[in-house]
Amino acid sequence: MAGDFEWVGRSPLRVDTGDKIRGHAVYIDDMKPRGMLYGKVLRSKFPHARIRRIDTGRAGRLPGVKGVVTGMDLPFQHGEGILDKPFLARDKVRYIGEGVAAVAAVDEQTAENALALIAVEYEKLPPVFEPLDAVKPEAPVIHENLHAYDHSSHINPVKGTNICHQFNLQKGDIEKGFAESDFIFENTFRTPMMQHASLEPHGAICLIDDETQITLWANNDSPYRCRNEIARALHLPLNRIRIISAPNIGGNFGGKGGLQAEAFALALAWKVRNRPIKVIYTRAEELGASLVRHPCVIHLKTGVKRGGRILARQVTMHWATGAYAEKGPTVVEGGGVTAAGPYKIPNVRIDGYCVYTNRPIAGAMRGYGAPQACWAYEQQMDIIADRLGLDPLEIRINQVYEDGDVHANGQVLYSEGLKSCLQKVAEKMAWGRKPLGKDRGRGLACMEKAAGKTRSGSAAVVKVNEDGTVDLLSSTTEVGQGSTTVLCQIVAEELGIPLTRVRKASPDTAFTPYDTSTTASRSTFHMGNAVQMAARDAREKIIDLAAGVLEAKKADLLLREGKVFVAGSPQKSLSIAGILKARFGSSGSILGRGFYFPRPRPGTRPGSPPGKLFWLLGVHGVEVEVNRATGEVNVLKVYAAHDAGKAIHPSNCEGQAQGGISWGIGHAFFEELKFEKETLLNPTLLNYKIPTALDMPEMETEIVEYLHPDGPFGAKGIAEASNAPTPPAIANAVYNAVGVRITDLPITPEKILAALEEKAEKKQRAHPKSSGTPAR
Amino acid sequence: MAGDFEWVGRSPLRVDTGDKIRGHAVYIDDMKPRGMLYGKVLRSKFPHARIRRIDTGRAGRLPGVKGVVTGMDLPFQHGEGILDKPFLARDKVRYIGEGVAAVAAVDEQTAENALALIAVEYEKLPPVFEPLDAVKPEAPVIHENLHAYDHSSHINPVKGTNICHQFNLQKGDIEKGFAESDFIFENTFRTPMMQHASLEPHGAICLIDDETQITLWANNDSPYRCRNEIARALHLPLNRIRIISAPNIGGNFGGKGGLQAEAFALALAWKVRNRPIKVIYTRAEELGASLVRHPCVIHLKTGVKRGGRILARQVTMHWATGAYAEKGPTVVEGGGVTAAGPYKIPNVRIDGYCVYTNRPIAGAMRGYGAPQACWAYEQQMDIIADRLGLDPLEIRINQVYEDGDVHANGQVLYSEGLKSCLQKVAEKMAWGRKPLGKDRGRGLACMEKAAGKTRSGSAAVVKVNEDGTVDLLSSTTEVGQGSTTVLCQIVAEELGIPLTRVRKASPDTAFTPYDTSTTASRSTFHMGNAVQMAARDAREKIIDLAAGVLEAKKADLLLREGKVFVAGSPQKSLSIAGILKARFGSSGSILGRGFYFPRPRPGTRPGSPPGKLFWLLGVHGVEVEVNRATGEVNVLKVYAAHDAGKAIHPSNCEGQAQGGISWGIGHAFFEELKFEKETLLNPTLLNYKIPTALDMPEMETEIVEYLHPDGPFGAKGIAEASNAPTPPAIANAVYNAVGVRITDLPITPEKILAALEEKAEKKQRAHPKSSGTPAR
Repeated sequence: MAGDFEWVGRSPLRVDTGDKIRGHAVYIDDMKPRGMLYGKVLRSKFPHARIRRIDTGRAGRLPGVKGVVTGMDLPFQHGEGILDKPFLARDKVRYIGEGVAAVAAVDEQTAENALALIAVEYEKLPPVFEPLDAVKPEAPVIHENLHAYDHSSHINPVKGTNICHQFNLQKGDIEKGFAESDFIFENTFRTPMMQHASLEPHGAICLIDDETQITLWANNDSPYRCRNEIARALHLPLNRIRIISAPNIGGNFGGKGGLQAEAFALALAWKVRNRPIKVIYTRAEELGASLVRHPCVIHLKTGVKRGGRILARQVTMHWATGAYAEKGPTVVEGGGVTAAGPYKIPNVRIDGYCVYTNRPIAGAMRGYGAPQACWAYEQQMDIIADRLGLDPLEIRINQVYEDGDVHANGQVLYSEGLKSCLQKVAEKMAWGRKPLGKDRGRGLACMEKAAGKTRSGSAAVVKVNEDGTVDLLSSTTEVGQGSTTVLCQIVAEELGIPLTRVRKASPDTAFTPYDTSTTASRSTFHMGNAVQMAARDAREKIIDLAAGVLEAKKADLLLREGKVFVAGSPQKSLSIAGILKARFGSSGSILGRGFYFPRPRPGTRPGSPPGKLFWLLGVHGVEVEVNRATGEVNVLKVYAAHDAGKAIHPSNCEGQAQGGISWGIGHAFFEELKFEKETLLNPTLLNYKIPTALDMPEMETEIVEYLHPDGPFGAKGIAEASNAPTPPAIANAVYNAVGVRITDLPITPEKILAALEEKAEKKQRAHPKSSGTPAR
Repeated sequence: MAGDFEWVGRSPLRVDTGDKIRGHAVYIDDMKPRGMLYGKVLRSKFPHARIRRIDTGRAGRLPGVKGVVTGMDLPFQHGEGILDKPFLARDKVRYIGEGVAAVAAVDEQTAENALALIAVEYEKLPPVFEPLDAVKPEAPVIHENLHAYDHSSHINPVKGTNICHQFNLQKGDIEKGFAESDFIFENTFRTPMMQHASLEPHGAICLIDDETQITLWANNDSPYRCRNEIARALHLPLNRIRIISAPNIGGNFGGKGGLQAEAFALALAWKVRNRPIKVIYTRAEELGASLVRHPCVIHLKTGVKRGGRILARQVTMHWATGAYAEKGPTVVEGGGVTAAGPYKIPNVRIDGYCVYTNRPIAGAMRGYGAPQACWAYEQQMDIIADRLGLDPLEIRINQVYEDGDVHANGQVLYSEGLKSCLQKVAEKMAWGRKPLGKDRGRGLACMEKAAGKTRSGSAAVVKVNEDGTVDLLSSTTEVGQGSTTVLCQIVAEELGIPLTRVRKASPDTAFTPYDTSTTASRSTFHMGNAVQMAARDAREKIIDLAAGVLEAKKADLLLREGKVFVAGSPQKSLSIAGILKARFGSSGSILGRGFYFPRPRPGTRPGSPPGKLFWLLGVHGVEVEVNRATGEVNVLKVYAAHDAGKAIHPSNCEGQAQGGISWGIGHAFFEELKFEKETLLNPTLLNYKIPTALDMPEMETEIVEYLHPDGPFGAKGIAEASNAPTPPAIANAVYNAVGVRITDLPITPEKILAALEEKAEKKQRAHPKSSGTPAR
């Protein structure tokens, strides 16, 4: 396939490599506009309390302090879908770590010192921490005015409760499905609070002048979304706000969205005008007071025919979104739509509840609800197979979605490469053929994640310079995922120029065109399409000009190696620069533009659900060995296959798969923000463990190219498919190895030892908690 | 006329006012990228010398010094049309003030201290200072390798001489013209070296990384031209170089073009990689070592019929371009094409010589050669009128160009409003009717200046945001001339939105589209056209979308006040934001684009000269009183009329006229960089005088709107028409008052006293030096 293309499908050196290996890559902390002050945030020590009084007088008088701001100074609320969050707490605090006041000073230490001089008088309120507790009628209500908050129309908060959004999806007749089933399986699974733990913490610098023109430098993943959230909160015209991306962002994974450090920098700049103010989070703030993954309780009830055919599945999910909604409502949707798994199930009902608790705010995190769902449905698949004596591969392969199937959400599927992934992993790991040793086991897990932001636009400009080099204008941020390289490859491919001649500057809303966001694995697809359109538009203009200059028919012209050739007359070639010069002298310049906004697939029945543009699809298979004495699990090898559509940069795609596996290992075994009642027990990376190189197993990753009819060169997204299947595959392998099943992440040695003990006590083959009750 | 438009032709508050009056406008000296070093330049003390040796060892060892660079480090030459200038002197120095070495240090004082530690060994060479000396065969040759320099094809340097370019223009038969004339007038006029004296000095910050990616922040007037000059010199692809304009530039007048401080910042950054280095000029460097106006010797020979009709005019001009060509060749062309004056003369010959001297480099300066020419031809008009007993108004009005006339350059004229300007000024000053007192006189001067950069392109992007506000992307720099406001007015007008909803960020070649330059009074015309095209393109897209959303015919849709209205159904209106939302949800965004590149006027005969797009046209009339005892001239009033085509921002146009007059006053009376042999006598603003408010006369300015068929809304440029006619009008008025004529600028009291004395000595009515010899 690579042979068809010059740049697409190859893996050139990433364009950001040079700066990064030389240490010249600029991050937000490297930026220091003239006159900059440093901001620090005083955070709540109570999970739920009314603020009686804040005395900032002493802090304000400390030499070097230029201003102290509290929630009283900013009578605004912000949020992505529901505007429930003040910039700093106003009437009450809702979690430990919530910003209560902030100080701007000439240096960080002075700002830090001033925090200690701020006196806050609280009146404690009863907190609620668990989502199942928070939905009880007697639970303390965290947002009394929930019903009055401005919110987007797709969100339905329940007045007087802690439920900020409910999600419901139904297909077929669930009761009929259960009635016709031979077995009913009911299981509950739990996933904990996790953190992105990006290498780079959140940071922002904000400058607001007397005329309330706002300039915000940030390591935010999505400058346009950020601009919109600020404009909506402050009721300002969009072009009064300028968001300048840090040229490099040290990790995102969903955590750099919304307003985090941005909110505090902005609050300070609102008060202390005309000076830029920088706020950079400490690691403790990262872990305890930025964004986390939604802890979730997932209850699955599944009706199955003898032989394994699933007739009905009902999923009930309670998602703890923490003190503020952030992206909770759409995470609940994202996790909900996929919660029945990628299987042909005729009758489905899914209910998701997005629930406030007095905990840190949960937001977007790689997989966006899909990992929680996958942890549940992929274990239950093995529970069912085990009970019915079926092979875990077979039960999946017989039921996994294929092109033309109708998804639980009602759409007719296309570009569905999951079965190929499953076959590829099975083949690689010699499923059912390779003998494994004692206390060793194998496990499989499939996953699908809906492409997010389906109806969302991306725009791009391809600026061809006088010498034929190109500046690409696109608001996709480089968060380490390699999008800059991929987008430059698309331009190089379409214009037939060397990759080195394409350069992309980082986003700046005053200049770079609109993009919805760098999230949801959408950049290669959405922005890739926009860039391709812009490059083709530029190409067309070059061909138009060249036809005149070379006196040739447009149809005969080819672009290759920076030149325009006339088919059949190689001597007539001219460089792009030469063509521009012939027509415009030294002023030759071309602006190609593209705006991609998805349209329904041809043939979609009118009135059918909008559907997802594509699905992120992947399968992991693992082989493990369990130490019965210590409870430790040794992952021997992970096999992965991911459907990337066309892999524009294959080694980058493999990198995504490998990175996803490392996340999966972390989530499977270590990662959990643990609380002892109110208190976070592991607010540092010393006790919030993420995998090191030594924790990583051998990996074999495979990219399946199941082309997408609308993707650029057939490409789809891949990033978010890659972490979710590892933990359930490991859990399934652990069960396969030693016969115990862990339903609550993470899979710790303590849990395994306890399960082995329980199993031994029962002196009989331990069935899993719910092992398939014959229906009625 | 203003009634037809919402924004065009009105004078809203300039959009840059707020920042400027609050002191928040950011200039280059306000910019300080992280890790910045300060650069200082060691300059030559000799006008012409060979460099034997440079010892930078001691300077390099001074604590705080991060690097010392000499010409040996950069084997490159740069220049706009002829690449004659090293970044730092290499083999020899060619003027006092030429950069010989530069130091980068942690602060300015250290850099300055280090300069004193650099030892340079020179071998003096004979210098030449005057252009008429420099063209003599025995003159020392300043550029021995002139013939070998890379240069643009329109430049013709003469090998082995100091002539770097020759200009020649001929129309009709000059000898026949003289033969048929009744009188021959021959006069020589001189103009001195002047300086722009912008409020803000030159400044630049350059960062070059290990991969030779160049980022240059500068107060350069034209980021794309600057990028091109660097790329051409260093043989780099254009997109490896990023030029970021300072958001505000404190005055330009042609002086901020080319590479001035930029060259030294770049040279230092070339040596000291990975750190930004700032170079800001001192006032002494501004006056003695930046750019100056070309001193010029103009010889006019004119054949006239009895009755005043001019039959033939021959002009010979020697322009001193200083040590390097800079824009000399095109200044000579610009001054040359207009040197016969804006009069219907059938036989013309113009010869211009661009001559190297051992003086500071002459470059672009408001009027670009036209003021020198105007000083000559407008005085000779009065000399002729005086000798033939004609009225100075009448001799002009009878011969001034009108639409349809053929210019000296061969083009058929259109949009030629000079006669209207002349009539307007005559009317205002009651020419020939108002009695003036003793020792008082009146004088007139017309001027034309060819629009420069005729065949040059400008591009613009109009980015319509989700809420209908607009970001305008254009590489026109705001140098104080008000272009930002004018360009935003054009967008507001075309889109029917309030001016406050349009915002323009400053240029950055990584983002903002191509523009040739912010020079030559071209921005309103060229960029105005590009912006208008981009806005109309955006408007068309809005209308397309609106037709669908409002279910209306496109032809019925109107844009007004940020809304789209359906003609005849006012209730059907929807805001631009509403239309975008209806079609694209929250992703609504539009990119309008425009690229303006002039095409020949319809009806232009094929093969006829390309011609000028428009001519800057203006007339000044002055009334003066001369103090016979002191020689002082008191300007009582200046009357001005300028043809602006359509005045998009009338008060800005009047400001240009008033600013031009203040320049004219300065040039008439004070401004001259004076040398005593080698030494500049007035290197500070204490002794290089520019007019203060107290020096300014009463002014009455009038804008004549002689619409241009291709200008945006009929607009033309105006800035450069406005300073040239003041000095000759004053000289003519002085003659009218006291009968003495000063042919060498400036008109000092000493010169007047000497002339009055000479006149008195002759005891007879003093004829001017050349008073019209009857032909043969």
